Amino acid sequence: MSTNKFTAGIIGAAGYTGGETIRILLNHPNIEISFVQSRSQAGKLIASVHKDLAGESNLVFVAEPGKADVWFLCLGHGESEKFLHDHPVPANTRIIDLSQDFRIRDNKHDFVYGLPEAFREQIKSAKHIANPGCFATAIQLGLLPLAKAGLLTAVHTTGITGSTGAGQKLQDTTHFTWRANNVSAYKTLQHQHIAEIRQTLTTLQPGFSEPVHFVPWRGDFTRGIFVTSVLTTTGDTSVLSKLYREYFENHPFVVISEEAIDLKQAVNTNKCLIQIERQGQTVAIHSAIDNLLKGASGQAVQNMNLMLGLSETAGLRLKPIAF
Amino acid sequence: MSTNKFTAGIIGAAGYTGGETIRILLNHPNIEISFVQSRSQAGKLIASVHKDLAGESNLVFVAEPGKADVWFLCLGHGESEKFLHDHPVPANTRIIDLSQDFRIRDNKHDFVYGLPEAFREQIKSAKHIANPGCFATAIQLGLLPLAKAGLLTAVHTTGITGSTGAGQKLQDTTHFTWRANNVSAYKTLQHQHIAEIRQTLTTLQPGFSEPVHFVPWRGDFTRGIFVTSVLTTTGDTSVLSKLYREYFENHPFVVISEEAIDLKQAVNTNKCLIQIERQGQTVAIHSAIDNLLKGASGQAVQNMNLMLGLSETAGLRLKPIAF
Amino acid sequence: MSTNKFTAGIIGAAGYTGGETIRILLNHPNIEISFVQSRSQAGKLIASVHKDLAGESNLVFVAEPGKADVWFLCLGHGESEKFLHDHPVPANTRIIDLSQDFRIRDNKHDFVYGLPEAFREQIKSAKHIANPGCFATAIQLGLLPLAKAGLLTAVHTTGITGSTGAGQKLQDTTHFTWRANNVSAYKTLQHQHIAEIRQTLTTLQPGFSEPVHFVPWRGDFTRGIFVTSVLTTTGDTSVLSKLYREYFENHPFVVISEEAIDLKQAVNTNKCLIQIERQGQTVAIHSAIDNLLKGASGQAVQNMNLMLGLSETAGLRLKPIAF
Amino acid sequence: MSTNKFTAGIIGAAGYTGGETIRILLNHPNIEISFVQSRSQAGKLIASVHKDLAGESNLVFVAEPGKADVWFLCLGHGESEKFLHDHPVPANTRIIDLSQDFRIRDNKHDFVYGLPEAFREQIKSAKHIANPGCFATAIQLGLLPLAKAGLLTAVHTTGITGSTGAGQKLQDTTHFTWRANNVSAYKTLQHQHIAEIRQTLTTLQPGFSEPVHFVPWRGDFTRGIFVTSVLTTTGDTSVLSKLYREYFENHPFVVISEEAIDLKQAVNTNKCLIQIERQGQTVAIHSAIDNLLKGASGQAVQNMNLMLGLSETAGLRLKPIAF
Repeated sequence: MSTNKFTAGIIGAAGYTGGETIRILLNHPNIEISFVQSRSQAGKLIASVHKDLAGESNLVFVAEPGKADVWFLCLGHGESEKFLHDHPVPANTRIIDLSQDFRIRDNKHDFVYGLPEAFREQIKSAKHIANPGCFATAIQLGLLPLAKAGLLTAVHTTGITGSTGAGQKLQDTTHFTWRANNVSAYKTLQHQHIAEIRQTLTTLQPGFSEPVHFVPWRGDFTRGIFVTSVLTTTGDTSVLSKLYREYFENHPFVVISEEAIDLKQAVNTNKCLIQIERQGQTVAIHSAIDNLLKGASGQAVQNMNLMLGLSETAGLRLKPIAF
Repeated sequence: MSTNKFTAGIIGAAGYTGGETIRILLNHPNIEISFVQSRSQAGKLIASVHKDLAGESNLVFVAEPGKADVWFLCLGHGESEKFLHDHPVPANTRIIDLSQDFRIRDNKHDFVYGLPEAFREQIKSAKHIANPGCFATAIQLGLLPLAKAGLLTAVHTTGITGSTGAGQKLQDTTHFTWRANNVSAYKTLQHQHIAEIRQTLTTLQPGFSEPVHFVPWRGDFTRGIFVTSVLTTTGDTSVLSKLYREYFENHPFVVISEEAIDLKQAVNTNKCLIQIERQGQTVAIHSAIDNLLKGASGQAVQNMNLMLGLSETAGLRLKPIAF
Repeated sequence: MSTNKFTAGIIGAAGYTGGETIRILLNHPNIEISFVQSRSQAGKLIASVHKDLAGESNLVFVAEPGKADVWFLCLGHGESEKFLHDHPVPANTRIIDLSQDFRIRDNKHDFVYGLPEAFREQIKSAKHIANPGCFATAIQLGLLPLAKAGLLTAVHTTGITGSTGAGQKLQDTTHFTWRANNVSAYKTLQHQHIAEIRQTLTTLQPGFSEPVHFVPWRGDFTRGIFVTSVLTTTGDTSVLSKLYREYFENHPFVVISEEAIDLKQAVNTNKCLIQIERQGQTVAIHSAIDNLLKGASGQAVQNMNLMLGLSETAGLRLKPIAF
Repeated sequence: MSTNKFTAGIIGAAGYTGGETIRILLNHPNIEISFVQSRSQAGKLIASVHKDLAGESNLVFVAEPGKADVWFLCLGHGESEKFLHDHPVPANTRIIDLSQDFRIRDNKHDFVYGLPEAFREQIKSAKHIANPGCFATAIQLGLLPLAKAGLLTAVHTTGITGSTGAGQKLQDTTHFTWRANNVSAYKTLQHQHIAEIRQTLTTLQPGFSEPVHFVPWRGDFTRGIFVTSVLTTTGDTSVLSKLYREYFENHPFVVISEEAIDLKQAVNTNKCLIQIERQGQTVAIHSAIDNLLKGASGQAVQNMNLMLGLSETAGLRLKPIAF
């Protein structure tokens, strides 16, 4: 285990992904949290907002960011770009942005898309990381080996997400009375993550031009994403299984399962579980992640580990909730 | 079955108890809904607010109350009194108020406390009914036979309620992400229903002066209240069982069970399930209701049935949810 | 309202669909339950098995079926055929079978497939009905208008079901500890309902030969099915909306919604909610039902109503759970 | 951090508490798991039973226990005594028994009751530990300071537990369809944990002879226990708060909160949250734990840490589930 020590600051630390980043970093062997920033909560103990942290830390929210080796930007979509515009970034500070502001490649920025299972080497040498979206992570991990092998065809994906994906703000769709025991669709066929998914897939399989149809559902649980992608392709099950195992061989957080998987295998871990099934020429790939961990803060820390030369799994061997 | 027909209007019809009253009355054999009033939703179809009613009704919310044989006041606490002050009540219109505004007897009003299992005869001849609180209903039904027999001593009650008890407004304590899989206490030992409970108990057992300690909990479900009251009293189990069975003999919505009861036996019904257990001199009485039905709108319709000379169960034989 | 009276018997009355059929028929204005049969529970009060019926009925399970105008067969798959082989059916007794035994047309039986929204006229004159599967109902209702218009192409469907779909038997996949907050796939691309779905679709759109890919998921709720079917087709949204509205114009339990639908709009009702969305040439059709009602016992009673010349909705205007 | 290394073996490792002990020890800095024993699962990978451990470990269940510095007995009640009778314990092997077999002091055994917040010094020098029950832990932690101060009077406690408390076996009361959205009471006023609770309380407050009335409820969640104990006592809130803070000052897992607590603050942690409220002379103490951690495996590891001279919190700073 590396004994190097680094400092990290969390910006927008009062929200869900901010809190989750704090939870991970409090126990990370190589990191000291140098500041937790929140305009709205400045001056308060973090445990007064993240109540599960009662007794864990005496950190207090500050209004302005301070020095750190890494800044985690846990802001709303659109706010990261504004924040970086308004605040000078200290020299040598690495940035990991959890919003969608820099996920699409563009001449105007130098952010690397932080999906380690696709772009690990670029991440290691990057200074700025755009952390992938939660649904985007689950869907891409289920398709990367096919894309790399040039086997992708039109994809039909349905995914279901926990309520934490909708954030901390009170909304009709996160009212307990409505959401309990309920399922509903939203942003049908037009979810914003489709763009970043396509960007990665076409990077691995240049020329891939068929549609990725994605229907997102809201689930009646708090944590987790379960996704099934269906497509037509050649290759029998054992060939596909081999393809997936080889692709993810050196990726510590992806587990290929021959048995049925379920969402809770991933909850409170940074893992992605993947299972492949087929009938004739039709293949279904199931994948499951914790939307706040592999789908957000856990992946952000994984990216940080890579950027800082630490073990990729440092601080991320979390006890699963299991039940 | 009586074939008499009456009209009913629902005031504050856009909230939870308003919607539940509509759901019952739409299928009530003796009632025609003459208006559904809501200032905030005036002009909209009821199904645009109560979405489960899609395809069931073309009723539209109106801003002002109209004529009806019965007005159901489904307003917030404190608002009923104000509403009646501001709006002239048509002659011969009966009022059933679901708020707590008139539950405590007072020289300034003539509302009868609408707990049919305690005050059925008064309700039949009343013009104004104060419908009991949800927790108050579950707790009182568990204690009425003991009070009538003069056997009440100090009571320790714990109760747990579904999220619909907290109403439609978005609140931190009804955020799905927080409430799912969670339990918490609130208004410990000082819930406002204690006053109406004591009022009934001292009516049945004059001189009862010992405390009723009540600890309410928030549960992670939407509908229902489960309550256990513990006290010390004489009489073995069979004596108590007989006492309860005799007390509730002619009350169609109370079921005394010799077996373990559970909350879902009551959900989506107007019933109250009661089970009595004892160890030595200590007795525990469990009771379960649906907080929106026997704890609110169902009991309101039961009171209406009594006031209008209809069968007490008219419109209230609802299919249980069961699961 | 017809005042004709008929008798009904329920065979296999101790299971989930048996209990649900009892719950409906207890309040049905034209039906008297003449017997409830269960070998395993013979001699017991129905409320000792279906505990939500405490206080509702003194019916006792019998071991052998008796006379009735209609028999509901609420047996496991494969058991209905055996039951009918072993028991002579009284002359003039109509049969509604909730199992899958007779859903596929065959020279060896005369059962009519009981999906009223596709085959109402045949049902009216049938003596034997094969009641559709739960997923099959939700999926077909979402596709019937397209099939009738000859617009069906390859279909990709994902559906999620409540735990009651898995029946009363204790199983690993219905252990609360496992299923709570969980999602998982099963019978991926090979669910048995695909056959009955294809049978109906090809009846309405002869020559339809493209695949129906169906991925079923287990949800962490007890009642309900939510399904999204995706396909490519012509016709803009308003054309499709018109097509659907016209198709279902005289079908009282199907509601076409222009707004987002959710599962709980259907729970504890016999309704099917349908919403259509499109992006370019791709159409997504969402449908929601209660798997035990429109997906089983409710539809069985709807079929009974049609067979007996009663109002199609008799006994089926149920109070929704709403929350 | 101590760098001493010890070995631990888990007996009955296929059950819930066995799995949870594995989850903790896999990441414990001072422990190597030397064997995981299960007769029923011998020969299988632990991840084939504890599916959340997929990708985490290649440990395989063995049929017979092996050598280790500590044995965790994660067996059913009554089975630990039998196991120790049938299996010779290696010299110098410490035993931590999670069953109730040795919790009550007795001339026939030398097990120390493993509640560190009451008996830390005895635990440090013990060779055999009887790990407390889950409800017993939550209730005792809420009452210890009062008992030590001699302020205990008759106690009325209600507690609610997650389904994991009922174990892995399929039971009617852990069927998802029944338990979801449900609450029920069991073992009313006669739960077996009352004996161990009284044993501790009378140790701290000799002469305490008043009753501890305890009503346990089953909750519709998987992890956690929430308990409220009500009693009459002197001392205003600030005095009580001080009493509690002083008592738990050096106990790292107990957090006294001035604000409302909720169950999820404790879930997936080894913490116990406590809040005190009062009205007049009546005090209510709320406490919340994770039943599998502070209520079982977490406390077992805490006891192990104390016995081995490790930091009391080693391996037990777990990321909370939070949501």
